[in-house]
Amino acid sequence: MSETTKFLLSEDQMPKDWYNIAADLPVPPPAPLHPATQQPIGPADLAPLFPMALIEQEVSTERRIEIPEPVREVLRLWRPSPLIRARRLEKALGTPAKIYFKYEGVSPAGSHKPNSAVPQAWYNGQAGVKKLATETGAGQWGSSLAFAGSLFGLDITIYQVRVSYDQKPYRRALMETYGARCVASPSNETQSGRAVLAQNPNHLGSLGIAISEAVEVAALNEDTKYALGSVLNHVLLHQTIIGEEAMLQLEMAGDDPDVVIGCTGGGSNFAGIAFPFIGMQLRGGASVKQRRIIAVEPAACPSLTRGKYAYDFGDTAHLTPLVKMHTLGSTFTPAGFHAGGLRYHGMAPLVSHVKELGLIEARAYHQTACFEAGVMFARAEGIVPAPEANHAVRCAIDEALRCKAEDRAKTILFNLSGHGHFDMAAYQNYLSGGLVDQDYDEGELAMALSGLPNVG
Amino acid sequence: MSETTKFLLSEDQMPKDWYNIAADLPVPPPAPLHPATQQPIGPADLAPLFPMALIEQEVSTERRIEIPEPVREVLRLWRPSPLIRARRLEKALGTPAKIYFKYEGVSPAGSHKPNSAVPQAWYNGQAGVKKLATETGAGQWGSSLAFAGSLFGLDITIYQVRVSYDQKPYRRALMETYGARCVASPSNETQSGRAVLAQNPNHLGSLGIAISEAVEVAALNEDTKYALGSVLNHVLLHQTIIGEEAMLQLEMAGDDPDVVIGCTGGGSNFAGIAFPFIGMQLRGGASVKQRRIIAVEPAACPSLTRGKYAYDFGDTAHLTPLVKMHTLGSTFTPAGFHAGGLRYHGMAPLVSHVKELGLIEARAYHQTACFEAGVMFARAEGIVPAPEANHAVRCAIDEALRCKAEDRAKTILFNLSGHGHFDMAAYQNYLSGGLVDQDYDEGELAMALSGLPNVG
Repeated sequence: MSETTKFLLSEDQMPKDWYNIAADLPVPPPAPLHPATQQPIGPADLAPLFPMALIEQEVSTERRIEIPEPVREVLRLWRPSPLIRARRLEKALGTPAKIYFKYEGVSPAGSHKPNSAVPQAWYNGQAGVKKLATETGAGQWGSSLAFAGSLFGLDITIYQVRVSYDQKPYRRALMETYGARCVASPSNETQSGRAVLAQNPNHLGSLGIAISEAVEVAALNEDTKYALGSVLNHVLLHQTIIGEEAMLQLEMAGDDPDVVIGCTGGGSNFAGIAFPFIGMQLRGGASVKQRRIIAVEPAACPSLTRGKYAYDFGDTAHLTPLVKMHTLGSTFTPAGFHAGGLRYHGMAPLVSHVKELGLIEARAYHQTACFEAGVMFARAEGIVPAPEANHAVRCAIDEALRCKAEDRAKTILFNLSGHGHFDMAAYQNYLSGGLVDQDYDEGELAMALSGLPNVG
Repeated sequence: MSETTKFLLSEDQMPKDWYNIAADLPVPPPAPLHPATQQPIGPADLAPLFPMALIEQEVSTERRIEIPEPVREVLRLWRPSPLIRARRLEKALGTPAKIYFKYEGVSPAGSHKPNSAVPQAWYNGQAGVKKLATETGAGQWGSSLAFAGSLFGLDITIYQVRVSYDQKPYRRALMETYGARCVASPSNETQSGRAVLAQNPNHLGSLGIAISEAVEVAALNEDTKYALGSVLNHVLLHQTIIGEEAMLQLEMAGDDPDVVIGCTGGGSNFAGIAFPFIGMQLRGGASVKQRRIIAVEPAACPSLTRGKYAYDFGDTAHLTPLVKMHTLGSTFTPAGFHAGGLRYHGMAPLVSHVKELGLIEARAYHQTACFEAGVMFARAEGIVPAPEANHAVRCAIDEALRCKAEDRAKTILFNLSGHGHFDMAAYQNYLSGGLVDQDYDEGELAMALSGLPNVG
């Protein structure tokens, strides 16, 4: 008798709608504000950037939002993604805990990002939009939007953080293979970019700057809209398909997690796995199992654990609305650690909100500990996780070891948000002993926080 | 009503045995010969290199050979692999043909190679072997054996062709992440390597040289055996799980292929998809559907289409037995095109044999045409194929376009042997217009063929 390793759903079992946590929150999240008026923004303020269907999702309080069939048709290229029981890792750890992971690395771009790139591209296409501008750090989001754009015939321009553009040419090649145009940011193509270059022609760039460039292009060009890979409500909404599938798969496995874990940068993959479980708790109250939900972030960019919960800008040039979130300040520049997807000064407002409500825990790890966990995972389960996902792996292993120490057979679920095949230089760095644990600079953090906008 | 995209098997439906084409061949393939005596070799001659269980598989004529449960347990980490209907590609081509592909890129190493690496590592472990030596070109086989070694606690040493070792550090990082040791070949660790370096200290290496180094280490060290990633009968046997699964999945789809396509270097992924179908034809005779089975190779290394069917060595230093195969001569050095996994002077004896029996067709393509097909495939289906797999994609597209021209709705099946995430430099080269179609040199080929051993 063989024990099942992978819990697979048929295409028919793929969720037909997304789960919107806004429907179940006991307190609504603070509204985004217009930076000039400091008044709540309305749909019209967002219309230059997004098509109306996505704006409606951004503000919706409907619990379930239908996934359009043309979007489902594309998602079926790789979804439902597998839920895998990490039996070999359990044995290697000698833990009584059961460890499950949801594996999002099976997508064409190798991460969870296409879950939102595909609907964003489709809704824009439906609205007659021909061009999308976006930013990317390590390139996971950029390659996902490039992929989605190729399917729906959209022109995609991607402002890629200069340091990644130079250091990770293979991610760029992936974007170009899908037909997208990649521009090193800061660039000469925008006023935001030129302003930065005027001060420092060799600026390495940042996500905040790249966002400014993409937003500016969308705001100034009638035929161009903007797409963001995390942070916004509608992006988190699209990612809930991860947790919705995981629930069905855990049911197949006859199991129910005690702990749910995801890594957090902007917050989308974490929300994807966590929000459906949080929603179940919110709706069921004391009658349902109370789970621990853990968001894991890099110690060098610790917005949830060290940031201030305050109104801040999402970008450097201050072109975005003000949103209330855990932030390190929009001028904070994280150290150049390897998990590029987690190098963002802020946090998704919805993730920050559930943190404030006490619905989730947050934890920060240094990168050496994360790579150690990633290598242990690879040698047990075969899959080499992306540096971002290693944060979740580290936490899952620590929880499993705690179960061992306490002799408690808990069930742990984590999201393995992507594979590390594009990140082998980082592993090389770790294996050669060259990896350094970076911390944020207390003085720089204090300075960045002191520059927060003065809002109510 | 949505149309199914992926045809998935449950873990229980994964084949429990491998298919051995030797049981169904009308004529047995010519025996391997001992280079000194030119007499057929026996199991004892192979014993220094392989454990007895694999030697038995090498010479077996049993039709079905059971897959040991511990091997199945590991294969279940990613198998059964999906069979996918390329509906978007069909639409993009405007063809009446149906195109299915078996996707082997879902394995931890990203290709079909672990299908044989896992059983090879397991059988060696069962025989008490502690160390394995092997060679790798681009790194697909090396990373697969490194992965398998990590699961069964074997020390793995990989002689990686120098030019790949230098140009593809990320594949090396993957091997090291799994705990293997990687050595640039030619190396100073072996007599074969030192002999080459003495003539040319900057030699770029070749698969033939790397095989010599690994075989030498295994032959001289009691505790070390040798593992090969293609060519040998037992390797092809292990890959038949691809075709066996595909047959079950096509049955689910209610379809039956008219054309079956695989790319060929050493021949293992091609045999994996093709042999089960050839076996069905051999057993059923005229009563079963006669399919076209097409092996696709690089025009710059065209063993099946331009080589001589003759006895030759598998390596440069002539340490291997003589096998009858389509060969370009063991001193032939293929041009440095991107499909490194197809840069081998010979061909699997069993693939050569079925070619001689008229059971398969062979076709050669230049690399630019293959990358053009790969980019078209990526933009339609999302998956970026490995440069090797692009040869199969090109052929499938050409067959589909022929169906369009002739208005015939044929069913095409091809094996997508691996993803291209480690090969984005090659795509970059193609996209930038820098890719050159290389041909073999007629003079060099004639010279290499003139050096073939003089065997009855």
